[in-house]
Amino acid sequence: MRKTRGHAVIAQGGGPTPVINSSLLGVVLGMDLRLDRSSQIFGALGGIEGVFQEEFQDLRSFTNNHWKAIAASPGAALGSCRRKLSREEAKEAVKILRRHDIRFFFYIGGNDSMDTALKMDEAARELSYELQVAGVPKTIDNDLVETDHCPGYGSAARYIAQSAIDLGADIRSLPTPVSILEVMGRNAGWLTAATMLARKRLDDAPHLIYVPEHPLSEDQFLDDVSRIYDRQGWVVIAVSEGLKKPDNQSWGLNRGHVGQDNFGHSLQGDVAASLASLVSARLKLRARSEKPGLCGRASSLLVSSLDHREAHEIGVFAAEQLVAGNSGFMAGIVRVDQQPYQTDFTIVALKKVANHEKLLPPEYVSKGWNDIRPHFRDYVRPLIGEPLKHYPLLPE
Amino acid sequence: MRKTRGHAVIAQGGGPTPVINSSLLGVVLGMDLRLDRSSQIFGALGGIEGVFQEEFQDLRSFTNNHWKAIAASPGAALGSCRRKLSREEAKEAVKILRRHDIRFFFYIGGNDSMDTALKMDEAARELSYELQVAGVPKTIDNDLVETDHCPGYGSAARYIAQSAIDLGADIRSLPTPVSILEVMGRNAGWLTAATMLARKRLDDAPHLIYVPEHPLSEDQFLDDVSRIYDRQGWVVIAVSEGLKKPDNQSWGLNRGHVGQDNFGHSLQGDVAASLASLVSARLKLRARSEKPGLCGRASSLLVSSLDHREAHEIGVFAAEQLVAGNSGFMAGIVRVDQQPYQTDFTIVALKKVANHEKLLPPEYVSKGWNDIRPHFRDYVRPLIGEPLKHYPLLPE
Repeated sequence: MRKTRGHAVIAQGGGPTPVINSSLLGVVLGMDLRLDRSSQIFGALGGIEGVFQEEFQDLRSFTNNHWKAIAASPGAALGSCRRKLSREEAKEAVKILRRHDIRFFFYIGGNDSMDTALKMDEAARELSYELQVAGVPKTIDNDLVETDHCPGYGSAARYIAQSAIDLGADIRSLPTPVSILEVMGRNAGWLTAATMLARKRLDDAPHLIYVPEHPLSEDQFLDDVSRIYDRQGWVVIAVSEGLKKPDNQSWGLNRGHVGQDNFGHSLQGDVAASLASLVSARLKLRARSEKPGLCGRASSLLVSSLDHREAHEIGVFAAEQLVAGNSGFMAGIVRVDQQPYQTDFTIVALKKVANHEKLLPPEYVSKGWNDIRPHFRDYVRPLIGEPLKHYPLLPE
Repeated sequence: MRKTRGHAVIAQGGGPTPVINSSLLGVVLGMDLRLDRSSQIFGALGGIEGVFQEEFQDLRSFTNNHWKAIAASPGAALGSCRRKLSREEAKEAVKILRRHDIRFFFYIGGNDSMDTALKMDEAARELSYELQVAGVPKTIDNDLVETDHCPGYGSAARYIAQSAIDLGADIRSLPTPVSILEVMGRNAGWLTAATMLARKRLDDAPHLIYVPEHPLSEDQFLDDVSRIYDRQGWVVIAVSEGLKKPDNQSWGLNRGHVGQDNFGHSLQGDVAASLASLVSARLKLRARSEKPGLCGRASSLLVSSLDHREAHEIGVFAAEQLVAGNSGFMAGIVRVDQQPYQTDFTIVALKKVANHEKLLPPEYVSKGWNDIRPHFRDYVRPLIGEPLKHYPLLPE
């Protein structure tokens, strides 16, 4: 293979996934193969912040063993950030890269990171600087458009579905009649929907699934819970942390003056705790909430091997495409076949992806917006890789 | 072996653990070996409630494969309950057992179950009915006295310590500077203390550990968090769900009129959410909370093989002792040696165990009551069995 000359910078943005470092390694190996020995591969430490701070780490010097361990670790190995750039700032960032003679820039991230990548690409054109920019998708929320799914989602889905099975085994065996499992995802219900994989028998948990794409009224919620409780005496519910009331207020606990963080973002979550209180108060049933939270996107023990492999391969693919001359794209996944599951990679213009959000399509949700329809399994099952662990009951 | 004649009943009480069914199988096999073929081994369904309802299931008829799967499942396979008996009720229960000609009764459970077992034993003597009663310990809280540790604790400790590692990997890599991990345990800090196993490097999570044995003031908490944050820019905190303020009020969220469930128990928990709000409001730091809750005691993926084996063996031991003529005891674990870890079983009078609670001894806790001292590792490390999964950092 004819080697290319030019330094590269890779950065990781937004919330980590259990396989974000697998993509990092994919990009590094993909570039290592294609760049000549005079070209350096840097990691920007702390996402795009690392570019502004000019904190670059040489990634070509690590041993294979070290890389293997890094690739199997949760958390963003390079460090991450949540900074959104203005056009001016993007220009600033490109100028810094120009000063370091960087020709290739990769951003591994979600919606916001794709916006940053897009602005960097545009700024480079504006400055007539030959910088090539690629986005590599990662998000447990699975909410990027123009890709069948996002690396990171399959592993997080496996974790939360297994947690729903475990919780069901516990709750069905003792008289805490109601347990509410809170699942990450502010606007998109993909991850919450994945808890449907926990079901094998008719009465398996979860019995109700609420995604954030549709508001939930107090009356419907209490009716739903009562109905299931009357039928079988125990209820496990999966709710998205972003679930809203009909007036568009969060179902989360009202924290008064501490309802916003110092960035002005309203604090999400604790929706399950709030709903559990409601069940206790109104239905007089013992109810509790569980919220694995970040543990669910950081567990390396439930990584889907398929997810891990795809995350790696999409990184290699992005490197290949960038060196081949493409720029301003995000690498995407196309599902070519379902039986057996087969995918291909593609490139998508960043401007089609940045700032867009792929919500869970209504056809996957039951009419009452309180459950996920069975055919969602066809979509999500391949992504979680290894089978879930189901438990037997005593014979009747 | 000379076979004994007499029917047996086994029940499971209180909250399940990931290995409670391993003890169940141990008792069944222990009895199966010692009872003649005319003797039956029943499971009471739903704990002591199953005795009152006379819901008995024949446990001798299951296949080995089925038992193997049951023993590896979380949740109480026989069903459980939280009923505490009066002396009169205990007499009632014994009369029911007498009517079924039951001679052996096992209760697998924690403090409350040991109280039930004790009362049953006393009621039988009072009624001059030859019933032999054994308690088999299980609790993730590890708070039973007269035993080195309790089956169930090792696995739950492994789950929560691994969760602390995972959370640390996530939080250290992105700027959500503070995350608070809520750990089960109302009065005893054993499980919260086990998060100290997550630490390998100097700056590893968790950086602060608060157990419920000592109250925590707002000032101390904010000082502690600020100090760690100033030092390294990110903080992971482990807190017990039972953590109290100096005025003995729970640190949990004040839920007003829904602060009690229908049994009059105050609703525990959401201590981490409450502390995260406080950090946001007072320190102006982005803070969040995670609360795996019941998922932590129901996960079969992080079962400690040692815990699983001990849970089984203590069940066999209890059966052996009961058939040998002992009654009114709980089987306990004695740590015989530390290097290598070696244990023995013993029997302890139920009256020494029932209604007692073993709190975390102060010598394991740092002077400021905000951390666990290093030598606690000697106690807890053997119990979690398989090693935790630690992650590498990028080389400096």
